[in-house]
Amino acid sequence: MGAKEQNSGRSRIDRLRVFFSELHTDAVLVSHPANIRYLCGFSGSAGLLLVDSTHATLFTDSRYTFQARQEVLEARVQIARNGIVRAAGDVLRKGRGQPLVGYSASHLTVAQKEALQTAAGGRVRWLKDASVVERLRAVKDREELVRMRDAAELISQVYRRALPLIKPGISELELAGKMEFTMKQLGASGPSFDTIVASGARSAWAHARPTSKPLRKSELVVMDHGAILRGYCSDLTRTVFLGRAPQKVRRLYSGVLEAQQAAKEAIGPGVTTGEVDAAARGVLRRQGFAKYFTHSTGHGIGLEVHEMPRLGSGEKFVLQEGMVITVEPGVYVEGLGGIRIEDDVVVTEGGSSDLTTAPREFVEL
Amino acid sequence: MGAKEQNSGRSRIDRLRVFFSELHTDAVLVSHPANIRYLCGFSGSAGLLLVDSTHATLFTDSRYTFQARQEVLEARVQIARNGIVRAAGDVLRKGRGQPLVGYSASHLTVAQKEALQTAAGGRVRWLKDASVVERLRAVKDREELVRMRDAAELISQVYRRALPLIKPGISELELAGKMEFTMKQLGASGPSFDTIVASGARSAWAHARPTSKPLRKSELVVMDHGAILRGYCSDLTRTVFLGRAPQKVRRLYSGVLEAQQAAKEAIGPGVTTGEVDAAARGVLRRQGFAKYFTHSTGHGIGLEVHEMPRLGSGEKFVLQEGMVITVEPGVYVEGLGGIRIEDDVVVTEGGSSDLTTAPREFVEL
Repeated sequence: MGAKEQNSGRSRIDRLRVFFSELHTDAVLVSHPANIRYLCGFSGSAGLLLVDSTHATLFTDSRYTFQARQEVLEARVQIARNGIVRAAGDVLRKGRGQPLVGYSASHLTVAQKEALQTAAGGRVRWLKDASVVERLRAVKDREELVRMRDAAELISQVYRRALPLIKPGISELELAGKMEFTMKQLGASGPSFDTIVASGARSAWAHARPTSKPLRKSELVVMDHGAILRGYCSDLTRTVFLGRAPQKVRRLYSGVLEAQQAAKEAIGPGVTTGEVDAAARGVLRRQGFAKYFTHSTGHGIGLEVHEMPRLGSGEKFVLQEGMVITVEPGVYVEGLGGIRIEDDVVVTEGGSSDLTTAPREFVEL
Repeated sequence: MGAKEQNSGRSRIDRLRVFFSELHTDAVLVSHPANIRYLCGFSGSAGLLLVDSTHATLFTDSRYTFQARQEVLEARVQIARNGIVRAAGDVLRKGRGQPLVGYSASHLTVAQKEALQTAAGGRVRWLKDASVVERLRAVKDREELVRMRDAAELISQVYRRALPLIKPGISELELAGKMEFTMKQLGASGPSFDTIVASGARSAWAHARPTSKPLRKSELVVMDHGAILRGYCSDLTRTVFLGRAPQKVRRLYSGVLEAQQAAKEAIGPGVTTGEVDAAARGVLRRQGFAKYFTHSTGHGIGLEVHEMPRLGSGEKFVLQEGMVITVEPGVYVEGLGGIRIEDDVVVTEGGSSDLTTAPREFVEL
């Protein structure tokens, strides 16, 4: 991904500069790898990108010399010989005046910040910026939406191909391994997080890791998986039952599906993420299942599998056209297991549209 | 992993407490997931562990209620309703006196630290601790060494099984996907990092990601891969040539192998990691290849694929019996490609011993 692949019009770095006056900063120092990738195309894991009103410089180390040269289009590349933080600090120290430099307090560790401050010297003033790059990233451009639709279609395919494998006897790990292999067969660079396959009572752990436990008859199976395709993530959860499901499971499933549908219908430009969460939570409350819904309704997704915004209770973040979010209500009942249904959804002018194409109806295998 | 699986004798939390007097702290707040897992067994990704002289409390959120109950043995579990940082801060605020609390500046972000400080109030004094848990973790106990040997054997098997697949036409991504699938087939919970398969000129990128590029005749192929088995990581790199290698490639390969051997022979209790790095670097310097060796010689490995210590130029860290490190010199020549050979090695009373069993001799396929 580089400038040449972006929307026509302003480059992403120029769009970042638009925020300088709002933030009253002279420059922004970007430390988070996904933010760096978004702005200048560099996909390595070690780098700092310094953007001021006229220049952009990527500092990285010698491991990335060739890669940076190939990937970075809109920034100068400087290979740091004595540490990336020190190289960036040196440039700031040698600048003029008393620059005010924005940084992201959520991404810099206390130790990195102190090293930077030492290297940059006392003249530089620091400003905790308001996640400006994340705000840019939240609204996807046309090229990004194409990639995200492809990534969501890919993971929907992975799920469809996994369905015939879900049988008593196969282990959670084996099923997860096969799903991840299918992702790569279909062209993904890899999973966007460690695939979750959780069966039986273990499915009540919302973030269970797969184990060697075999799937058994009369168990719920939760599969939460995502793939990265050309840099962009997808995230998909489906829950199936092995055998004929008891009434309680059916009622829980249809409650979760209805909650998901209500959340999707609430989505649109101008709506807050808290309102979307409330729509899902309201459905489950009316059915007496609210106490089982122990997490938030979803999250933004893009270059990272979790990014801005969060769809949690009371959140005031306002949705805009072009944002992509997951909608994933779930219920977790100790002993019985868990049910979660998750899709990737884009905010459209008129409301929302599913990127995920995998079927949602209740499946008994 | 929990206390029941540890060495006889003191628990890990008690071994952490031994450092309290050295650091002059009253408590340590542990934020890094691998450190939390090491100390109390909890393998979730969201948690804070507060250890004082008499109590240990794990703060996590409702997603992990069941998991924490099952995994955590030596700490009390508190499910935070309004944020983990706030819950930990509340407990500190309600404590007596003016406690001095150690934390790791390398793991807490500036934003987390500020939130913690706000929640804990003005009485609590904070001390950047000297990575005490990392220091404990660097020396592996008997049970850990068993797991690490198994993880290294597993990845050696993955490499052996991959060899027949390395042929012109297979893509980097497909080969990487098959290697990762084999990891899971052999019981790994997953790769310890995204598998690197880099061929031809791309192999000169030390951290290249696999692409859809097919392997071709007369190319170097670097494979850097690792697996996680029962929580512990392995890390293995091998480089092969497709076809008959030119003289330059053979000379580079034998230089790297000799450098690796020299580094291994330098390893032993009381030796600094800088001395080990110098041993590898010296061999490559004598052969005129020093300028191609652009990274450090290795790193500690355990619950994380990169952990303390670092085997870099001039490092003063002193090796002890039971530490496990990688030894991975490499050369990267733009246009020609890269060669890296990496093994996992344990420091023994008499020197060192390979955990990795994969063959190291030059392979032409």
